[in-house]
Amino acid sequence: MSGADLCFLTAAELARRVAAKDVSPVEVVRAHLERIEATEPALNSFITRPGEEAMEAARQSEAAVTSGRRLGPLHGVPVGLKDLYHVAGTPNTSGSRIYHDFVPACDGAAAARLKEAGAILMGKLNLHQFAFGITGRNSDYGDTRNPWDPARMTGGSSGGSGSAAAAGQCAIALGTDTGGSIRVPSALCGLSGLKPTYGRVSRRGLSPLSWSLDHPGPMARSVEDCALALGVLAGYDPGDPASANEPTPDYSAALTGDVRGLRIGVPREYFEVPLDAAVREAVTEGLDTLRGLGAEVKEVSWPMFHHARAISTTILSAEASALHREMILSRGDEYDPSVRWRFEMGLFISGADYLRALRGRTAFTEKTRELFEDVDLLAGPMAPVVAPLIEAEEAEVNGAAVGLIPTLSQYTRPFNLNGYPALTIPCGFSQGLPIGLQLAARPFEEAVALNAGHAYQQATGWHTRRPPL
Amino acid sequence: MSGADLCFLTAAELARRVAAKDVSPVEVVRAHLERIEATEPALNSFITRPGEEAMEAARQSEAAVTSGRRLGPLHGVPVGLKDLYHVAGTPNTSGSRIYHDFVPACDGAAAARLKEAGAILMGKLNLHQFAFGITGRNSDYGDTRNPWDPARMTGGSSGGSGSAAAAGQCAIALGTDTGGSIRVPSALCGLSGLKPTYGRVSRRGLSPLSWSLDHPGPMARSVEDCALALGVLAGYDPGDPASANEPTPDYSAALTGDVRGLRIGVPREYFEVPLDAAVREAVTEGLDTLRGLGAEVKEVSWPMFHHARAISTTILSAEASALHREMILSRGDEYDPSVRWRFEMGLFISGADYLRALRGRTAFTEKTRELFEDVDLLAGPMAPVVAPLIEAEEAEVNGAAVGLIPTLSQYTRPFNLNGYPALTIPCGFSQGLPIGLQLAARPFEEAVALNAGHAYQQATGWHTRRPPL
Repeated sequence: MSGADLCFLTAAELARRVAAKDVSPVEVVRAHLERIEATEPALNSFITRPGEEAMEAARQSEAAVTSGRRLGPLHGVPVGLKDLYHVAGTPNTSGSRIYHDFVPACDGAAAARLKEAGAILMGKLNLHQFAFGITGRNSDYGDTRNPWDPARMTGGSSGGSGSAAAAGQCAIALGTDTGGSIRVPSALCGLSGLKPTYGRVSRRGLSPLSWSLDHPGPMARSVEDCALALGVLAGYDPGDPASANEPTPDYSAALTGDVRGLRIGVPREYFEVPLDAAVREAVTEGLDTLRGLGAEVKEVSWPMFHHARAISTTILSAEASALHREMILSRGDEYDPSVRWRFEMGLFISGADYLRALRGRTAFTEKTRELFEDVDLLAGPMAPVVAPLIEAEEAEVNGAAVGLIPTLSQYTRPFNLNGYPALTIPCGFSQGLPIGLQLAARPFEEAVALNAGHAYQQATGWHTRRPPL
Repeated sequence: MSGADLCFLTAAELARRVAAKDVSPVEVVRAHLERIEATEPALNSFITRPGEEAMEAARQSEAAVTSGRRLGPLHGVPVGLKDLYHVAGTPNTSGSRIYHDFVPACDGAAAARLKEAGAILMGKLNLHQFAFGITGRNSDYGDTRNPWDPARMTGGSSGGSGSAAAAGQCAIALGTDTGGSIRVPSALCGLSGLKPTYGRVSRRGLSPLSWSLDHPGPMARSVEDCALALGVLAGYDPGDPASANEPTPDYSAALTGDVRGLRIGVPREYFEVPLDAAVREAVTEGLDTLRGLGAEVKEVSWPMFHHARAISTTILSAEASALHREMILSRGDEYDPSVRWRFEMGLFISGADYLRALRGRTAFTEKTRELFEDVDLLAGPMAPVVAPLIEAEEAEVNGAAVGLIPTLSQYTRPFNLNGYPALTIPCGFSQGLPIGLQLAARPFEEAVALNAGHAYQQATGWHTRRPPL
């Protein structure tokens, strides 16, 4: 098997082969370092590339295998982290030159759990400045390009995570999702990406953007790998005030592939917003596939869906600006102008405005809860278009120009607002670019979405396509 | 037994006698109506006095007893409600003439639960306009006066609840506590008053002041009655988004009177703020009594205690102003000037200010949680002075003049901010006016505070003193 082929095995398969001593962690990491060397000039996924410390971790990992010690379910698996996840001794830029010399002294919760599970940390991945954006531009460390077509954007803000996992630069990448920043790049890069339930994964040692909307989670080339990663990341952590003290099921064991009788609702409101015809067609076929597997797919109505965006914009702006207030006033000229504008706008939101948005959020979440009395999943399109050109500020949808940021996040933000878990999986291609299908579940029922996604991937194989790069 | 004597039985004793047919609910209610008639000119506890509907409820209650049906633990017990608690068909003014003609169509959760438990609802009690204050003035329905000395204030905002329960106008009164509004009037009127854990008692059908700080709870002439009332009021209600789905213990059964080994912490910070010497002495004696009963009383330190007031003021102002924004702008001249000023001030709090306060709240609550690893209760003074004169805007503490609102709430606000349950009990008198001792417990451990308060009352009898009126 060539080095590049090794880089396109799933994390689950890599972990099996490492455990079976079919392949050594050193070989795995070397193949990934070579892959990064070969593809990084075209992609620019990394802010801090992995180096000698990754090889050293690989050697220790190999020594553990040799002496018969299995470190955990990700033993020998290369994992990249968005450059918001603190790793002791590694710079953490948040995509901004302001933080170019911030080097955390301690591992955050995610890095610590990954290391405990045997993963090899593979550097820090590019993102929008302070993760405040979803188009994938506006990093101080250059644009990230899409492995399916380097003229296209990866989406954001976890754009480097999207290109790295899609191009085989790592097996799993961690992203964060405040308004769609895991799911948008996952969809545009052809990945499976999970925004878990709010409180499911600890945010200790993760630079924040918006306390009540930020969700950390995995991006990978299969749902199986998302389940594997979630099993490692999930669990109560008193170090994160929002962490939920809920039991953690065995997500990998939940992937039975059986979706018979599963009730899947498709909100009619999803089709009242801009949606490219080819995306709509692929998603409709995807829903037919799930129906063919025995799920009951039906149209539903989601009251307040159209209000969710304004509510979440108010909350996001106020919370982000509260964090950045001093810095935006004193060092505003070091922000990208479009990012600066978004932070400054938030300073004009009053406490009363913010509280009104919180009340709207409570009402919207209650409407969602009621909707889920009749369904087990909500399904529909993820991104309404395939990856636009890097420089695009608008998208053309069925002949009409629409603003890129509101359009790309129209299906994602409702689940940041209500905190429900949402998974995107690839469900086809248009113009050679991947299309995403979103499956959302009840709080702490990630396993239901993951199992449906897994069943879909077993049936279709869309997720196994490799980008041309 | 005279009518007035009947009015000074505890609710527990009244319920026992009604169940034993020693006394009829009609007799009980008639005695209370006569007591109201006799004392109301001096006190002004009521905005809406009980009338024929109370007698009708008493007759139904009597019929139930006669036919052998026990309605519940408050069968035949007269309960007054602060005029924020919705009762179907009864005006609900919130202390403001703006709402003089607002008549709720449905019972709120508290009224419904009380009726189910057999209580007789006894009209609606006076309060500060919109419950935004603690001195007991600024109602559009006149000042409420203290039964221990009608020249003195009752405290607020549940001032009518304080005077009504203290003067035997009802056996139990419900108050609400956003910054101390149950505990301040309880202390100044010589009552036992409980602010339960945030989320313990449903707020459905209760006019709000500040969503995240409002707590409904009981005020009565004994801790035993507070426990009885809490048992009726507590429990999960999906109709209140903040309601906690926690089990409800039997609060009355928890009153064993045994406090041996109980660890009681006394924050040294309590003595770094204005505190009248006589109050301090009475509280110190109260703590000695608890020590004598077998509790372990020790000094502790409560980090961030001194920050709690500023944090809670920001949150309270922003939330209250968010609720009143439209009305304060369009009908500001119908507010009392001092109340208007407080609402208007809140409009200048930015979303970023509010969020900063929420972060402070999280930190403060964590400090409290850590403190409670070493203690089971926190104890100390409740009001730092006895009831001031009605017209006072300052209090004299050991010869120095201090602002009344910040001083009266200095010991109460921390527990609105962290949501921990807190009970006040009378622990002595100065100038013939009652002094309060505050006992605070861990979330959902109201029973621990109630049992300590009950043990104290069994040992001292301070709570059995009757006001001169």
